[in-house]
Amino acid sequence: MRYELYYWPTIPGRGEFVRLALEEAGADYVDVGNGSSKEGLGVPAINAWLEDDDVLYLPFAPPFLKAGDQVVSHVANILQFLGPRLGLVAQDDATRLWTHGLQLTLTDFVAEIHDVHHPIGSSLHYREQRAEAHRRAAIFTGERLTRFLRYFEQVLMRNPHGSDYLVGDGLSYVDLSLFHVVRGLEYAFPNAMQRIAPELPQVMALADRVAERPNIAAYLASSRRLPFNENGIFRHYPELDP
Amino acid sequence: MRYELYYWPTIPGRGEFVRLALEEAGADYVDVGNGSSKEGLGVPAINAWLEDDDVLYLPFAPPFLKAGDQVVSHVANILQFLGPRLGLVAQDDATRLWTHGLQLTLTDFVAEIHDVHHPIGSSLHYREQRAEAHRRAAIFTGERLTRFLRYFEQVLMRNPHGSDYLVGDGLSYVDLSLFHVVRGLEYAFPNAMQRIAPELPQVMALADRVAERPNIAAYLASSRRLPFNENGIFRHYPELDP
Repeated sequence: MRYELYYWPTIPGRGEFVRLALEEAGADYVDVGNGSSKEGLGVPAINAWLEDDDVLYLPFAPPFLKAGDQVVSHVANILQFLGPRLGLVAQDDATRLWTHGLQLTLTDFVAEIHDVHHPIGSSLHYREQRAEAHRRAAIFTGERLTRFLRYFEQVLMRNPHGSDYLVGDGLSYVDLSLFHVVRGLEYAFPNAMQRIAPELPQVMALADRVAERPNIAAYLASSRRLPFNENGIFRHYPELDP
Repeated sequence: MRYELYYWPTIPGRGEFVRLALEEAGADYVDVGNGSSKEGLGVPAINAWLEDDDVLYLPFAPPFLKAGDQVVSHVANILQFLGPRLGLVAQDDATRLWTHGLQLTLTDFVAEIHDVHHPIGSSLHYREQRAEAHRRAAIFTGERLTRFLRYFEQVLMRNPHGSDYLVGDGLSYVDLSLFHVVRGLEYAFPNAMQRIAPELPQVMALADRVAERPNIAAYLASSRRLPFNENGIFRHYPELDP
């Protein structure tokens, strides 16, 4: 099965959570948005799909994944779909529901992180909402950042199979996603993260453990891993991280 | 099976999406948050669970649902869990993934609706972020509201089984959720909704169709249906809906 990931190019963005799962599993996939338009890929291919009146099951927005005839939209839904196929989730339904719930908490967290620099509207530039972003950032770093990360620290501490992974005694897709969120936050809010890191030994150790996995390490060293930048979700604006 | 819904009392809130599914199916359930503390219910019962150090699989926040030993968190995950049990989703995996994706789009929409009145932080009162809310509301009603609702109109129009339901030719949980979002928006933004309604014949007809279902009509007429108010997600502040 060759998977086709549809997501905007040049930023890690929400597509990165899907890429990490595909890369960890060594899956065969095409990153459509980052492909060449000469090969029928790139942004035109994404827009062609979104603007095709004959598409019956239309995604609201990228990322979405094509797997043969199946189209799956939303990061958490894509990962829930890929999990069993890539060996990145447990076999039983109860554990899958728990894993998906954790991913949905990360989904909420990522939306809040994005809205720190876009509290008024995603159609405006950051420079058009800097004052509001400044106010929101203080509450984000003072309250929400710690609330979410302490929650994941608790999940690791309470895992009855040990604190190496969020779920059970092996890697699941939600570990990969938490790794990416931690790295993104370290990029965007280095000062806030340095302050809170001592409270988060399990979370920080998990992120390092994921980074050292052979397939992830190879991916991170490749040109396929797009650097964080100020067009994505995780943006470093020093004035938002005093 | 008696389901236990854990959600804060006095507001419809995110719990309402779960209540509507349980009510439509005539399921046996306890609305823990709205129960009496004399019977071991109410807010103390929710907090007791969230603060119990022995809980291994801790939800980040309400709503969560207990079904025997299983605890499921996040609205979309709860509905995905309940769907097959209550006859509110199709049998096949491909359709279930599509239905869940639509629910996740509603999840994103609901978060944006909430943040119109809380663009800076949920820990602040509305009166502390009125100026920012005013600015965000203009973008929300001018861009996002129409984008999301037109999307669902398209989904109904393109449904190969007809436009009576979002998925297939029968009711699924996502129809119930879209009904609630429409009613909530009509409460919060009556002027904006009046302007856009003519563009949304299928969405408005679906909402009316859901409201007329016998179990939903009985529920809406009961005291269990909590009225919209200015502590919930859908708030009517006239200055945000000129």
